[in-house]
Amino acid sequence: MDRLFIFDTTLRDGEQVPGCQLNTIEKIQVAKQLEALGVDVIEAGFPISSPGDFHSVIEISKAVTWPTICALTRAVQKDIDVAVEALQFAKRKRIHTGIGTSDPHIKYKFNSNREEIIERAVAAVKYARRFVDDVEFYAEDAGRTENEYLARVVEAVIKAGATVVNIPDTTGYCLPAEYGEKIKYLCDHVEGIENAIISTHCHNDLGMATANTMSGILNGARQAEVTINGIGERAGNTSLEEVSMILKCHKHIGIETNINTSKIYPTSRMVSSLMNMPVQPNKAIVGRNAFAHSSGIHQDGVLKNVQTYEIIDPHDVGIDDNSIVLTARSGRAALKSRLKVLGVELSQEKLDKVYQDFLKLADKKKDINDDDILMLAGADRTENHRIKMEYLQVTSGVGVKSVASLGLNIAGEHFEECASGNGPVDAAIKALKKIVNRQMTLKEFTIQAISKGSDDVGKVHMQVEYNHQMYYGFGANTDIVAASVEAYIDCINKFKI
Amino acid sequence: MDRLFIFDTTLRDGEQVPGCQLNTIEKIQVAKQLEALGVDVIEAGFPISSPGDFHSVIEISKAVTWPTICALTRAVQKDIDVAVEALQFAKRKRIHTGIGTSDPHIKYKFNSNREEIIERAVAAVKYARRFVDDVEFYAEDAGRTENEYLARVVEAVIKAGATVVNIPDTTGYCLPAEYGEKIKYLCDHVEGIENAIISTHCHNDLGMATANTMSGILNGARQAEVTINGIGERAGNTSLEEVSMILKCHKHIGIETNINTSKIYPTSRMVSSLMNMPVQPNKAIVGRNAFAHSSGIHQDGVLKNVQTYEIIDPHDVGIDDNSIVLTARSGRAALKSRLKVLGVELSQEKLDKVYQDFLKLADKKKDINDDDILMLAGADRTENHRIKMEYLQVTSGVGVKSVASLGLNIAGEHFEECASGNGPVDAAIKALKKIVNRQMTLKEFTIQAISKGSDDVGKVHMQVEYNHQMYYGFGANTDIVAASVEAYIDCINKFKI
Repeated sequence: MDRLFIFDTTLRDGEQVPGCQLNTIEKIQVAKQLEALGVDVIEAGFPISSPGDFHSVIEISKAVTWPTICALTRAVQKDIDVAVEALQFAKRKRIHTGIGTSDPHIKYKFNSNREEIIERAVAAVKYARRFVDDVEFYAEDAGRTENEYLARVVEAVIKAGATVVNIPDTTGYCLPAEYGEKIKYLCDHVEGIENAIISTHCHNDLGMATANTMSGILNGARQAEVTINGIGERAGNTSLEEVSMILKCHKHIGIETNINTSKIYPTSRMVSSLMNMPVQPNKAIVGRNAFAHSSGIHQDGVLKNVQTYEIIDPHDVGIDDNSIVLTARSGRAALKSRLKVLGVELSQEKLDKVYQDFLKLADKKKDINDDDILMLAGADRTENHRIKMEYLQVTSGVGVKSVASLGLNIAGEHFEECASGNGPVDAAIKALKKIVNRQMTLKEFTIQAISKGSDDVGKVHMQVEYNHQMYYGFGANTDIVAASVEAYIDCINKFKI
Repeated sequence: MDRLFIFDTTLRDGEQVPGCQLNTIEKIQVAKQLEALGVDVIEAGFPISSPGDFHSVIEISKAVTWPTICALTRAVQKDIDVAVEALQFAKRKRIHTGIGTSDPHIKYKFNSNREEIIERAVAAVKYARRFVDDVEFYAEDAGRTENEYLARVVEAVIKAGATVVNIPDTTGYCLPAEYGEKIKYLCDHVEGIENAIISTHCHNDLGMATANTMSGILNGARQAEVTINGIGERAGNTSLEEVSMILKCHKHIGIETNINTSKIYPTSRMVSSLMNMPVQPNKAIVGRNAFAHSSGIHQDGVLKNVQTYEIIDPHDVGIDDNSIVLTARSGRAALKSRLKVLGVELSQEKLDKVYQDFLKLADKKKDINDDDILMLAGADRTENHRIKMEYLQVTSGVGVKSVASLGLNIAGEHFEECASGNGPVDAAIKALKKIVNRQMTLKEFTIQAISKGSDDVGKVHMQVEYNHQMYYGFGANTDIVAASVEAYIDCINKFKI
């Protein structure tokens, strides 16, 4: 069996999606789950891009033991200096540097020429190798780079010391055969290719990221860059779960990964929950319907023999039909153990607080499911907030005009207002805007309540524009109106004044 | 340029998804939109499976002019008789019959043997040819059928008169190269293959439906079976939008379809809205983020030259940034024209009613978007309902217990109740259950409000179990609590008493 290295970029390429931004604590949670899942490399951020990314790479480096921690840079010394600093605590570290190699990139983005690009690439790799032994080079837009020139770039950076060479299909434009031929061309034509690992990095703009990645692997690539649930910019990246299950289902390919597939589903849920990014019901492997059969013909087949239709046993990816449901009678240990299954480990103090919240919620609803638990564990967001809700009362209905009365505590002072509106959410938010009198515009408003039971927790995700900047807010409550107000307040608390 | 026929099965394979069921009027709306989109074949249903499917095939046949109308059957005379009757009004008609050909199917589902399966296949095709000239045969689970035997089946059914042969990867298990080789094997080994069109039908269980379909096309298939948004059982079917845009972007393949790509986005929205099936933000081609760029590096590239990153012009698929927004001042003509763009044509009487509802909504919210309009146009669901809401008043908040008072008109008689609960929705539904005192259980509850503004229309989708049967309900209102009650009432109205 040959070995494929899994390079997870959920926390870098995946996290660039609008509305999916995580704070450092959430990133550490995801990174530890990725470690448990068995990924080989965690791309933890792009340190020069923001202090938040820099800080996250430092903290993830401290929190994680086995996977290599990778930091992204442009082919620029300053980027590399900052990445080196951010990686200082990593047990295994990698710098991921690179530059665009396609003609449109060379011409329009760099206003440069092919020879100069090779020089810059080589200089960046050599510079990075001064600080770390493991340097990955990306040839941005390799998908649209002519093979002959691409081979020259790859040969030059390997000579300069690159240990991994990433061939991204940045625009998601390649066909599987074409992408596979590109990888094969490099394997056949690059002198010294045996000294580096070729990596795939495919985007899903035409719906073929997974197939392109597989085609790259079948033609010689031995690292795949992927994200959980296939999240990422535009149509997203290759899905970790799809590639790892394809290799598991198709053993004849003779390539294996280090992924513990039974952790796939909990990881998918955690990322979806923390990033507020719902998974489409018909998403392969991890969607709600992925293993559900409905048509009469199929049901008959399934009843007669499960082998007739199902190729993956849901248990293999960690979907547990008999998943423990927690209730008000569940103890702290049960909560802790369930959190552990979901990949969350809390300090004793934090666990005590979450358990108190858990008991309050269990009092309101009978069955506490995994989503609720993840929500509770992440629910310390409001602790240091300047603005807190004191009370809210809303009256609404059919045949009546909605009206809301709201009390806020802003930096210790009490404020209250009332307002009427179209529906309870509109009324409550109008009252809020009377108190916080700023030029702010609600740009997007998403309610998620895919659940069983009318007393379930509703989650609200909002995007508010203020002072030409976008802010994201989140709220969760059994009362959907209260959750909406919480989300709006969450946005306001993030305003840079 | 070679021609690929697009066979759309949104209304058959797509509609089998739990919670996606459409009524006949909605199916006609989708069928007419598919005709405008330019599909070649519409699979309209499985007539023997239910009176609803039978009726839908009849009505779609009457409503649609250009596309071939196709009806599914098993390889059974009675199925074919019913399909023939259902297709009586179709201008162009096709019967789609077939049987499982893989060893697990032959053994476990049919308790039969290979020779007998061929006999049954041939008999069904011959029988269907007595009534229609166009007969498609499906070799169910062809993906796991040994090529040599599959070639014998295909040869036999073509000899019996099949005009199209469908090679489904029923389990979604194939790798692109493997599926392509299967198609190539048939092209190379089946005598008389030139007398029939080979069709692909791929499922997305491993995330490769589109790549498998493309591989089939590149190896000789000239019909692709697809659905809008890739909906379908489990992980779904191949996406129409992905296959048609791949062929459009990769002209060098030399294959074209009849799809008017500028209708892709409106069709996607219509199907998503009618089926209450949200499209994942990072869905290729039609997702909300599909053409959005966020990271600094990319934004820079896009600003410098759009060609650097975008390969598809969003306008090509009908995404119109300057889409007309209707307001209270918009006239009947503007509404009618927008409805037409969205693929909905209404009778004058119906249009008048929708326009009245439109004015009422425009009074409540400033900008009426396409989702709202589609919702209004489909909003006659309650007309013949036994149970109607008369009034609803709910008080809820943070620091107060939610309480609801509800008045219903049931078959002309007035009932009222009040109840308290956890959150406004729970309180309102408890009041409802006091009036309608039956053993019913809420199994699933989904709120969709992906939109701009707190006064937008919220959509609620519910699944209620009653008397061992599942019922689906839908509600839409600017007040999310009212929408929830409407959805529950919609379920109850469907109960078979």
